[in-house]
This record gives sequence, structure tokens and C-alpha cells, in this order.
Amino acid sequence: MIESGIRFLEELDKLKAVERRSYPIGLDRRENSAEHSWSLAMAVMTLAPTADPSLDLLRATQMALLHDIVEIDAGDTFVYADQTGKFGKELAAAERIFGLLPPDQATAYQALWQEFETGSSVEARFVRALDRLLPLILNFHAEGRTWREHGIRYEQVFARNRHIADGSEELWTYALKLMDAAVARGWLPKAEE
Amino acid sequence: MIESGIRFLEELDKLKAVERRSYPIGLDRRENSAEHSWSLAMAVMTLAPTADPSLDLLRATQMALLHDIVEIDAGDTFVYADQTGKFGKELAAAERIFGLLPPDQATAYQALWQEFETGSSVEARFVRALDRLLPLILNFHAEGRTWREHGIRYEQVFARNRHIADGSEELWTYALKLMDAAVARGWLPKAEE
Repeated sequence: MIESGIRFLEELDKLKAVERRSYPIGLDRRENSAEHSWSLAMAVMTLAPTADPSLDLLRATQMALLHDIVEIDAGDTFVYADQTGKFGKELAAAERIFGLLPPDQATAYQALWQEFETGSSVEARFVRALDRLLPLILNFHAEGRTWREHGIRYEQVFARNRHIADGSEELWTYALKLMDAAVARGWLPKAEE
Repeated sequence: MIESGIRFLEELDKLKAVERRSYPIGLDRRENSAEHSWSLAMAVMTLAPTADPSLDLLRATQMALLHDIVEIDAGDTFVYADQTGKFGKELAAAERIFGLLPPDQATAYQALWQEFETGSSVEARFVRALDRLLPLILNFHAEGRTWREHGIRYEQVFARNRHIADGSEELWTYALKLMDAAVARGWLPKAEE
């Protein structure tokens, strides 16, 4: 038990080398998926009062912690890029990486990850909402740097983030305010402009 | 509620700039305290079966997530360096940073952090054990790089890590094996040699 658990934890260190498109607040380097996963778990814990009251906080926190582990093999796919083939690659990654664990734990971790991917529970919808909100916040602090680097427009951000409302109406209201403020400051152009 | 929570989460991004002495496995840069906190939470979740069966997994996971937040103001103190003044600086940091949250949440986070610091519960002793074991594992993979950089000897490592046994006998047995293997490979000299 302990040896396979530690072998798994050693493998996880690779997530510290997976680069995202976002920049941590105040830093001139890209965020990695390990530190993002920590931010997400802290957000789940801190903003849980905005979720459906039936939320199971332990399950939601665990889901946040492991939601990006598949990127060790599959890499980070930018949310505004083509998503074709992403799920297949990530599923194979989940089987390999969670497969390092004893069977019971492997099954439990894989089930939590698939639940996150499919948004099939209160916990999954809330974690997915925060997984979208955090990059919005970082990007706002970076004066829209990621949007500008990739030519992203308001309509795309709106379409890719509207499912935040499925996790928390309050978070979606906040996200809309942030997007409007980014438009007003010229960091996020609208398509018709 | 949501505004102060988000203000707190924004502040937390600073932990991504706090450098530790360890090197992530396979990377030639130092680990930061945010990604370390993610590793620690994953370790708590994965190695919980080696803890006392009364362990409250949600509390232990939350404790791991927030145990290093005080380093935003106080910095990381190397475990083999002089610890004088560390607790006072960290307490002031806890008051400022957790104080960004609504009072109930601020109190709860601060209590969890103090419980971790004092090792006053099953959860705290287990999280503290893993907080010591993880750098041992990283350092072993780096062929003792951190020990060599700072002239650390076996006796110091033994003395600073023996409290791992208070959190889990099984983890301490594993740590001893790792330390012996490091000595055998010449990565961790004994004082008398």
C-alpha cells in the first residue's frame, strides 16, 4: 500500500512542469497545473457557501485536487482551442496514472475525475464553475494578457464560461461583472467592434 | 461574502512566489510553497490509510491546503535553520491574511493553522508527518542536493524528522529506509565520518 501510494505521489510531481495559459497575479511567468490545483481547492473550500447546500465538501475538495492530473500525459488544452481528441487522451492518462494506486483507490480517483469531466453532480458542477472563474480572475489582474495573446473576444469568453451558472448563480454574476469591466477597460474586445 | 472570499483567494496567489529549498522531481528549479501545498494535500488523501483510523480526512486535507499560507508574509524558514522568531512572524501573518475573510471563516482557518503548528490533534500530527516526509522524498530523488547545498548531516535529518512517528509509524519506517539508502549512496554523510 504505502509503496504504491508513494510511487503515485512521485509521479504527480510532473504536474509542476505542465504550463497553463494564465499568469499568477503579480508574476511574469505562466501558472503550472499543480499550483492551479491548489488554488482551486482553496477556492472550493472558501467559496463553498455559494454552492448548493447539499455540496459534499470533502468530495468537492478531492475533485479539485485531482482534476488536472491527467495533464501529466495529455498536456493542458487551452479552453479556447479545439477540444477534439482531448477526452480520449485524458482517459488513457487517467487509466495509467491512477492505475499506479491499489485497485480500490485507483477506482475511486478515476470515478471522481470522470464525475468532474462530465459535470454529473453538484460537486462536479461547482468545481467546474471555479475552474472557469479562477482564470478569469487571473486574466483580469493581468489586464487581459492571455486574451490578448490569443486574440480571444468577449463572445468566446461568455460562451465558454456560462456553465459557471450551473455550479453557482452567485459566481456567474461575479464573472459577468468581471467580463464587463474587462470590456470597459479595453482588455476584452467584443466581436462587432 | 463572495467579495471578501475572492479578495482572500487573490492574496493567496503570492504563495506561488515563495521559494522552498526542495527541487520538484526531475526539475532544475526550486519548489514553491503553493505547489508543495498541493502535493501535501494529495499525500494526505492518498496515504490516509496509514494514519490513526480516527483521522478526519476533510480537516486534515484543509489543514494541508492552508498550512503554509503564513509564508506569504513570513517567508519559508528552512527546517534546518534557526527557528527563533518564526512563530511570532507567522502568527502576525495568519492574523492579517485570514483576517481578509468574514469573521467566522477567519476564525476557523486560523484555528486549523494553529492546530497544525502545535501538532495538537491526530490530523495535525499526520499532516506534519507528511510535511516532513515529502521533502525527504524529493531530496532523495535529487541525490541529496538540498542536504549537500546546506551541509546537512544524517543526525540533523534524524532529529528533525523523528516526529513523523507521531503521525504514522509506517511513514516513519519508510523515512528511515530512505535516510539509510541516502547514507549508503553517499548523499547524506554521518557526523562521525
